[in-house]
Amino acid sequence: MTSSKASTMKDVAKQAGVALGTVSKVINGIPVSEKNRLKVEEAIRTLHYEVNTYARGLKIQKSNLVALIIPNTHNPFFAGFADHIESSLYKRGMKLLLCCADGIPEKEIDYLNMAVNNKVDGIIALTYSDIGKYITRDLPIVVFDRFFENQVIPRVASDNFAGGCLAVEKLMEFGCRHPIYIRFHSVFPGESDKRKDGYLYACKKHDLEPDYLDVVDCDERIPVMKEFLTKHKNPDGTLTFDGVFAHTDYHGYLFKKLLLQEGFHVPEDVQIIGFDGIPKFGNIEDGLFVSSICQPVEQLAEKCVEILVSENAPSLTLLPVKYQYGGTTKE
Amino acid sequence: MTSSKASTMKDVAKQAGVALGTVSKVINGIPVSEKNRLKVEEAIRTLHYEVNTYARGLKIQKSNLVALIIPNTHNPFFAGFADHIESSLYKRGMKLLLCCADGIPEKEIDYLNMAVNNKVDGIIALTYSDIGKYITRDLPIVVFDRFFENQVIPRVASDNFAGGCLAVEKLMEFGCRHPIYIRFHSVFPGESDKRKDGYLYACKKHDLEPDYLDVVDCDERIPVMKEFLTKHKNPDGTLTFDGVFAHTDYHGYLFKKLLLQEGFHVPEDVQIIGFDGIPKFGNIEDGLFVSSICQPVEQLAEKCVEILVSENAPSLTLLPVKYQYGGTTKE
Repeated sequence: MTSSKASTMKDVAKQAGVALGTVSKVINGIPVSEKNRLKVEEAIRTLHYEVNTYARGLKIQKSNLVALIIPNTHNPFFAGFADHIESSLYKRGMKLLLCCADGIPEKEIDYLNMAVNNKVDGIIALTYSDIGKYITRDLPIVVFDRFFENQVIPRVASDNFAGGCLAVEKLMEFGCRHPIYIRFHSVFPGESDKRKDGYLYACKKHDLEPDYLDVVDCDERIPVMKEFLTKHKNPDGTLTFDGVFAHTDYHGYLFKKLLLQEGFHVPEDVQIIGFDGIPKFGNIEDGLFVSSICQPVEQLAEKCVEILVSENAPSLTLLPVKYQYGGTTKE
Repeated sequence: MTSSKASTMKDVAKQAGVALGTVSKVINGIPVSEKNRLKVEEAIRTLHYEVNTYARGLKIQKSNLVALIIPNTHNPFFAGFADHIESSLYKRGMKLLLCCADGIPEKEIDYLNMAVNNKVDGIIALTYSDIGKYITRDLPIVVFDRFFENQVIPRVASDNFAGGCLAVEKLMEFGCRHPIYIRFHSVFPGESDKRKDGYLYACKKHDLEPDYLDVVDCDERIPVMKEFLTKHKNPDGTLTFDGVFAHTDYHGYLFKKLLLQEGFHVPEDVQIIGFDGIPKFGNIEDGLFVSSICQPVEQLAEKCVEILVSENAPSLTLLPVKYQYGGTTKE
């Protein structure tokens, strides 16, 4: 066998015919049944599994803890991301410290300090506050989506630019001739800014006149959207646009509610495509809130962990997105 | 001042005019500005704040970590619960280890072992698997909702019985004369079983004929509900019931979808009240999926933590629920 691909804990579990958790316990010296311990040990020998294969990039003095900094888990996108990060860490024998930093920047600093002091092995951050200045080159950290001026930080994101293009092209495919873009954005730069770039690029490519609502996020989203809507009505009461690419599913959902309130029909008068792919009740079988360009949350989480524990981290890793129907398009 | 109420870290932050995180850092010896450190130290003296006030019930050898075992964070109820537990721990200078145990019972055992080995200070568990047999009297643990035969474990839950009564009485108030109850239940006993008891009690009290769909949870929820619906049609096509108390918002949401598919109107023909109070997109401003008996998630989380760190834990603590409109009732 010449393959240089290292065996994973998953391979060991499969080979031994036991659960991942059992392998993890054997490796961490936690008692399991004699029978299972022998099975796992044999599988480790057979596969030449090296316990630290995955963790080679992390410090020697291990806590086996990784801190995940996210704004909150109320937002279903963050909640799903946290869930997948936890699974991804667990199968490598690591555990997740959850830090919901919404509105409390001191919390982020607190967790960054833990990393500096070797109390956690690394940090995965999905944050909208300005922690860039606290991050040093030595800190094992991966950021999701956000862009920091300190360029050494490895970033993982969806291919937002391609997603913006895809949204426009899907709306065109379903008959739209005047797709607009709407966004309430954070003051911090991030990869998600490229959704708009993708929208503008696709408009230019397909000879469409771009038009958008793009303002800093605020408490008055509904009045702001209402004013935008009023300005986009023709004298006969119809709208100047027939499609909306919303920066997030949530923006799309809010805009849909407003359109319905104003007597328009979705998707008959206006089709809407959001971004994120958020399922109702967290179950994909229950469908999405709006048709959407879906982020591959599970793969994104896996990639963040993989990069955190690897020696050679690429500075930017983008994963592909895909379209999914969610009731607000003619498809 | 004769009050014996101990000061909290929150009081110190308020007195010092600094953020909670700053107080936490001073207590944990993490550097803050000289000015803030002096302010915090003065507030600690003024208030006679004792750092370990909250943690007196926990072991002396502290990790300051508490493991939260939940099935997942995809489910918005669990996600919200995790968020509030994290906040509640943070303000006491403790951190949250997140364990999503869905389908992997070994994970729960893994975390229970950590508690036994002093690697975490305690465990808060919201679990549907059978970990009761692994729990000993010495383990600092609080369970949410679930009932274990091992009675020594302190439990926290919503007042599910009162919630069942309230659902029936609200449906009656809005004009229902034939409220039914629907549930797909876990095989493990829990406090939430009392929702049905409350429903039955209120039916008896108000001289209503009880009627329900109550089966073990399965993959065929829709066919099961459809069969139930067919059996409850009058010869003229109308239904034998005019109100539904659903065991969870999710069950209510599924039943609503089915009713709409079958040509009935909600709330005109049938009113629905669920249980949980799950807001769309995790934002209470965006409303609920269905009208609901809402669990006080934030207070439940706070209570779990409070009990975990207290010396004298009551064996059962129930918190009150309340009704909230969510579009599926005539109110």
